[in-house]
Amino acid sequence: MIAPSLLSNLPATLVWEDDTLRILDQRRLPGETVVETVATAEAVWRAIHELRVRGAPAIGVAAAYGLCVAMQPYRDTAIDAFRDRLTERAAYLDSARPTAVNLGWGLKRMLSAAQRHNATTSLELYDALVAEARCIHEEDRLLCEQIGRHGLSLIKPNMGVLTHCNAGALATTGLGTATAPLYLAHHEGRPFRVYADETRPLLQGARLTAYELQVAGIDVTLITDGMAASMMSQGLIDLVIVGADRVAANGDFANKIGTLSLAIACKHFNVPFYVACPSSTLDLETPDGRSIVIEERGAAEVTSFGARPTAPTGIKVRNPAFDVTPHTLVTGYVTELGIVSEPYGQNLASMFGAHR
Amino acid sequence: MIAPSLLSNLPATLVWEDDTLRILDQRRLPGETVVETVATAEAVWRAIHELRVRGAPAIGVAAAYGLCVAMQPYRDTAIDAFRDRLTERAAYLDSARPTAVNLGWGLKRMLSAAQRHNATTSLELYDALVAEARCIHEEDRLLCEQIGRHGLSLIKPNMGVLTHCNAGALATTGLGTATAPLYLAHHEGRPFRVYADETRPLLQGARLTAYELQVAGIDVTLITDGMAASMMSQGLIDLVIVGADRVAANGDFANKIGTLSLAIACKHFNVPFYVACPSSTLDLETPDGRSIVIEERGAAEVTSFGARPTAPTGIKVRNPAFDVTPHTLVTGYVTELGIVSEPYGQNLASMFGAHR
Repeated sequence: MIAPSLLSNLPATLVWEDDTLRILDQRRLPGETVVETVATAEAVWRAIHELRVRGAPAIGVAAAYGLCVAMQPYRDTAIDAFRDRLTERAAYLDSARPTAVNLGWGLKRMLSAAQRHNATTSLELYDALVAEARCIHEEDRLLCEQIGRHGLSLIKPNMGVLTHCNAGALATTGLGTATAPLYLAHHEGRPFRVYADETRPLLQGARLTAYELQVAGIDVTLITDGMAASMMSQGLIDLVIVGADRVAANGDFANKIGTLSLAIACKHFNVPFYVACPSSTLDLETPDGRSIVIEERGAAEVTSFGARPTAPTGIKVRNPAFDVTPHTLVTGYVTELGIVSEPYGQNLASMFGAHR
Repeated sequence: MIAPSLLSNLPATLVWEDDTLRILDQRRLPGETVVETVATAEAVWRAIHELRVRGAPAIGVAAAYGLCVAMQPYRDTAIDAFRDRLTERAAYLDSARPTAVNLGWGLKRMLSAAQRHNATTSLELYDALVAEARCIHEEDRLLCEQIGRHGLSLIKPNMGVLTHCNAGALATTGLGTATAPLYLAHHEGRPFRVYADETRPLLQGARLTAYELQVAGIDVTLITDGMAASMMSQGLIDLVIVGADRVAANGDFANKIGTLSLAIACKHFNVPFYVACPSSTLDLETPDGRSIVIEERGAAEVTSFGARPTAPTGIKVRNPAFDVTPHTLVTGYVTELGIVSEPYGQNLASMFGAHR
């Protein structure tokens, strides 16, 4: 495990200690490092909905611990009441955001752990839930490192790597997904440059990716989303690697808005386009990208910055948080089990169908 | 002339009256409508450099009047001294921004008007300069309308049209370039939808295009730059039309950063991609896009918004204000003389080589 030393200067995405969930409020980075205790189901829902904690893998871990938090008031109730409440609270938390599959995935894992457990008291079942959440948490860290090891071969000396949004340590509880190969390559002393798309409207690239790579001492340059194609046309980008919020059975995937545009530019300039994600992001029940529900967020994210309006009052806005990139534009998926390439329908199912 | 009635609710880009140049400070739109008197050469230089007045055609007109402003202190000097000073002041103003060809073009027109004029006094030559600037101004308005008439056939009922940055009325002293066909189609009662890219880093799409189309009563939806490809993938965009800051002899062109990405997405989704500009934007002395000098602007435009930092302190930044789109991605140029298509090298030269 080399992860801790690599990220020693970065605040933790979330911490579970003394039956208390504390999360880093990522909306306030990089200006302020604020860690908040999340003590009720409603607070967990809001933390996910308002993107205090974000990034598909981190949302999965937050939801697992969040369900523990949500069940704390019922530890003294009868076991049947506890079980009923558990299902209801999981459904409630699942409604916080629609696109990232890891939210539902984490909650489902918690529910099935509870189902398997023949506890006789609510307290016993609660403890089993906490144990399962810890397990999901630890797994997440390991998955990141495995993704990093499999992706390491993609990082060649002196190359330019572009990434979008934040599929970094802050999006997980480990080395990140898209960033894991970068952290490991940097740890080995391999020289390379990273370009971080700022990622409008919420600037996760500027606020989070640029921040965490800078903290780690990696050579990172911030650009606006519209500059990526220009950098490619100048030969500055040799590889694009992004995360994913949901991968459909055929290999289409949803990721932060702007990803599709990048993938198309990669095809045009013949730049390899990789997606790094754990198998928990794969949703074999979703046949293709058209079936993925895309979260549409409020207009204010686009029409203002902080409290300052940047567009005319009353202007119509679209604000889909994600877009869908077809599998035909993906060079490969970097997963914990290795790099998967076309045909995705077949290869994803055979690698992960049984595994899950 | 229907232009005035179409734009009656929009503040004028610039006004020349009583030997005084007044410009609308576009950095403060849409929140505030501030008109500033620009009374010295240095103030003209700053107004162009700092983007108070921007948009290739408007810069051309502002530079022409700006040269008059710059020469006002020398109206009582000897004619030879006036002529020497004129050359020097034009070179100074030309240094305000490197990419838009119209800046140099407007100044060259002023200098050659002065050369042709056999004035015996400085005052006489000054008056000739003012007359030439008025002529450039009036021509700009007419060019916009001609571009609009030639582009009108592209706007089909109920189509979705996407534009980038602001190639609108505010970028010219008339109906705009990319927007001219839209204003004329709207005037005819043709229904259509416009999508305006916000255009980071300076948000000319959000602040200016969304604003001026909204003021005109045109159905406009604001999106972030990274959403354009997603909108295309959903079949919402039937046409993209943008402006240009410099068109090379082979048909490659420079325009606001993010344009290349759009053009590539158009090719991918088979959406027609048009460039609207007057012949003054064509630079036959620049053989191709590689020869176009791209202005690199300060990091703060990318790392902060207003006074609020949005990226970590000390982060490296690239901030090219423009990118170059190859002619192979352009469906056609909408000019004052008609729509030009491939082969651009031949067709641009034959249409405009003699004309200029």
